[in-house]
Amino acid sequence: MSTTDELLKRRYRVLGRGSPLFYDKPLHLVRGEGVWLYDADGRRYLDAYNNVPHVGHCHPHVVEAISRQAALLNTHTRYLHEGIIRYAERLTATFDPELSMAFLACTGSEANEIALRMATVCTGHRGIICTRYAYHGNTTAVAQISTVFPPPEGLGPHIRAVPVPDSYRDPRDAGGALLPDAWLQSIERACESLHANGQGVAAMLVDTIFSSEGLPELTPEFMAKAVAIVRRAGGIYIADEVQPGFGRTGESMWGYQRYGVVPDVVTLGKPMANGHPVSGVVARAELATEFAGKVMYFNTFGGNPVSCAAASAVLDVLEQERLQENARVVGEYALAGLQRLMAKHDLIGDVRGRGLFFGAELVKDRRTRTPAPDETKRVVNAMRDRGVLISRIGVHDNVLKIRPPMPFSRDNADLLLATLDEALKEA
Amino acid sequence: MSTTDELLKRRYRVLGRGSPLFYDKPLHLVRGEGVWLYDADGRRYLDAYNNVPHVGHCHPHVVEAISRQAALLNTHTRYLHEGIIRYAERLTATFDPELSMAFLACTGSEANEIALRMATVCTGHRGIICTRYAYHGNTTAVAQISTVFPPPEGLGPHIRAVPVPDSYRDPRDAGGALLPDAWLQSIERACESLHANGQGVAAMLVDTIFSSEGLPELTPEFMAKAVAIVRRAGGIYIADEVQPGFGRTGESMWGYQRYGVVPDVVTLGKPMANGHPVSGVVARAELATEFAGKVMYFNTFGGNPVSCAAASAVLDVLEQERLQENARVVGEYALAGLQRLMAKHDLIGDVRGRGLFFGAELVKDRRTRTPAPDETKRVVNAMRDRGVLISRIGVHDNVLKIRPPMPFSRDNADLLLATLDEALKEA
Repeated sequence: MSTTDELLKRRYRVLGRGSPLFYDKPLHLVRGEGVWLYDADGRRYLDAYNNVPHVGHCHPHVVEAISRQAALLNTHTRYLHEGIIRYAERLTATFDPELSMAFLACTGSEANEIALRMATVCTGHRGIICTRYAYHGNTTAVAQISTVFPPPEGLGPHIRAVPVPDSYRDPRDAGGALLPDAWLQSIERACESLHANGQGVAAMLVDTIFSSEGLPELTPEFMAKAVAIVRRAGGIYIADEVQPGFGRTGESMWGYQRYGVVPDVVTLGKPMANGHPVSGVVARAELATEFAGKVMYFNTFGGNPVSCAAASAVLDVLEQERLQENARVVGEYALAGLQRLMAKHDLIGDVRGRGLFFGAELVKDRRTRTPAPDETKRVVNAMRDRGVLISRIGVHDNVLKIRPPMPFSRDNADLLLATLDEALKEA
Repeated sequence: MSTTDELLKRRYRVLGRGSPLFYDKPLHLVRGEGVWLYDADGRRYLDAYNNVPHVGHCHPHVVEAISRQAALLNTHTRYLHEGIIRYAERLTATFDPELSMAFLACTGSEANEIALRMATVCTGHRGIICTRYAYHGNTTAVAQISTVFPPPEGLGPHIRAVPVPDSYRDPRDAGGALLPDAWLQSIERACESLHANGQGVAAMLVDTIFSSEGLPELTPEFMAKAVAIVRRAGGIYIADEVQPGFGRTGESMWGYQRYGVVPDVVTLGKPMANGHPVSGVVARAELATEFAGKVMYFNTFGGNPVSCAAASAVLDVLEQERLQENARVVGEYALAGLQRLMAKHDLIGDVRGRGLFFGAELVKDRRTRTPAPDETKRVVNAMRDRGVLISRIGVHDNVLKIRPPMPFSRDNADLLLATLDEALKEA
């Protein structure tokens, strides 16, 4: 076994220094189980970050499904196979009935590529409205809407990135609603300018929990109005469920359901098969049919029997272990704990989130709400040193990102909160 | 178990009729082993088509590697892990020494996306030269160069698709070399027009065995001149090794090595992990470093421990079972057999290929070399009905595509040839 330093040196040579690593002291991991990760020295870490191992690291039911199917058959969707059909039926059944057809691919980027191509091909328009500080993937077209990392290729004339309301800082009316509706106004303006420059409006694509943007709280009214503006302009509504999907928010299977507006297309990724590279698109039948009639879409690995076995096993575990309910209950419990920490630590300016995706926004001064990104980074590293893994997000890079595997328990939440209490004391 | 017809009906409902299926009578598969596939009725088929199960369907060494690592740890490259570093070292060691750095992703489309972005970001130009009737993947940017399926979005001003020489039909000089150099001339013209319209030349990207184009035989001189033209114009040379790579051509590990020109960037896909969704890019260090310095590239599933275990196991089997050598020996044997069939069946106009990727071009008339696409389709379906799986490719859709898993034996080749002999009699 290499030491961590030797490994780092070898990594720099073959993968480069540009390949991102977490933490000031990178973690050298060798084993995972449930919500726990173990490093090369045998030290245990509570995983309060990773959403890809959705039902827990190395869940035996998923591992068994992968092993069994990998030993039996792994081909592609140009042959008939029960697995993909059964999985696609099962998956679409978890959506509102109009979202009845599915495409399977391998990554969130590929899912968003399909959605963007579907919007462009089916509307005949090119313009895409996304949000500022969003992340949706790494391919050329998707990098255009991943505004958190501005692509060096520059932005095309078809892209409009609108700011998401800051539910912590933006002014509110007497009833608590955000004022003014700068977001809706900027969507209106984006539609107008896309019409003016001849691109037209093909779609608005948003992460329905606005993860990179720092988990702002948007209301159903907000979202309904935003979607109505886009649809009036001839565009479709694409919900990126890579972050909130598969029950993470506790309240519903899909993040979009919180707002009560059914999307035209939904994209799925990371948690779908617990780390096996599987992603998907679920769409209204008329859009899916029109797209497939115009584009010869085939994905070699997408929907292969092993991928479908893994994805199906994840649905089994979600049901059997009632993990959406666990996300709701433990999420509420942890959020209440964060609120108690806020009463104790001035550094915490706001606490928000849904289910097992929540965060604390750190500020230098609660009155001015001045972001504290350096302190946030120090807290994340201090947590790692104390054996709890989290990260950070947000427009100001000052929101603690807490998004553990779904079997996260109250005991796990207690350890997270106690460790955060200590880390905040030193930040 | 559903009957095949019921399954087809369910599939149409949830995946649509646009999702492509092989053969007039779709195959309903349930099991695979080595070069054999089994349908729901227990019928056995010789697989002479699939290159994804590179070392054979469900190879126990690969299955064991996947099962073991899936039970141990499956995270991502933002933590240190031995597996990805060891695999990347091992992979890059199979290339010419200047190709020393690697990126791992999940699909061939994603690998080509990285290569195209690398070309654009590092050269500062946008123009891409590809070939006519090529296939490189399904994302927006890659669909632009997948000219075999013209994208309904239309082609951008940065794309130039040049015709590949037809080694069967184009005239040759007394020494047997292709004349005139229409291909080289069209590359020259593409460069000029990309400069004239302000795009500049970022790259030429080609499949080094020209699979979709029908396996034309190009000489090292041809390729050296083509690459020199592109490099003189400021572009880089990207070799798409998704089809010929990992020893398939028998003569070398990588298809580009047949021409003696080292690419700037190489893209890898399908066979890399025997069906587990893994792909990669291997590049000159200066390009990889510049790209990673300018683009925050991270791929959630790319290079995860299970993917690397699967990919590493494929390299083990390639070495242990000497499969590149097998591809050379059995490929030559099968090609000689195809030539004997050509002497017997007027329908075969030409026979060509390398290692375990070869084909027979079917023509209505050997003198006029008129393509016979309908007969080709009939032969492919007749082969399926007789229990041997192949497909078809080429500019005229009249080349039998034979590309079996790498452990294909002489006995397998004999069965393929005997069955083809029968199928040709009836076509």
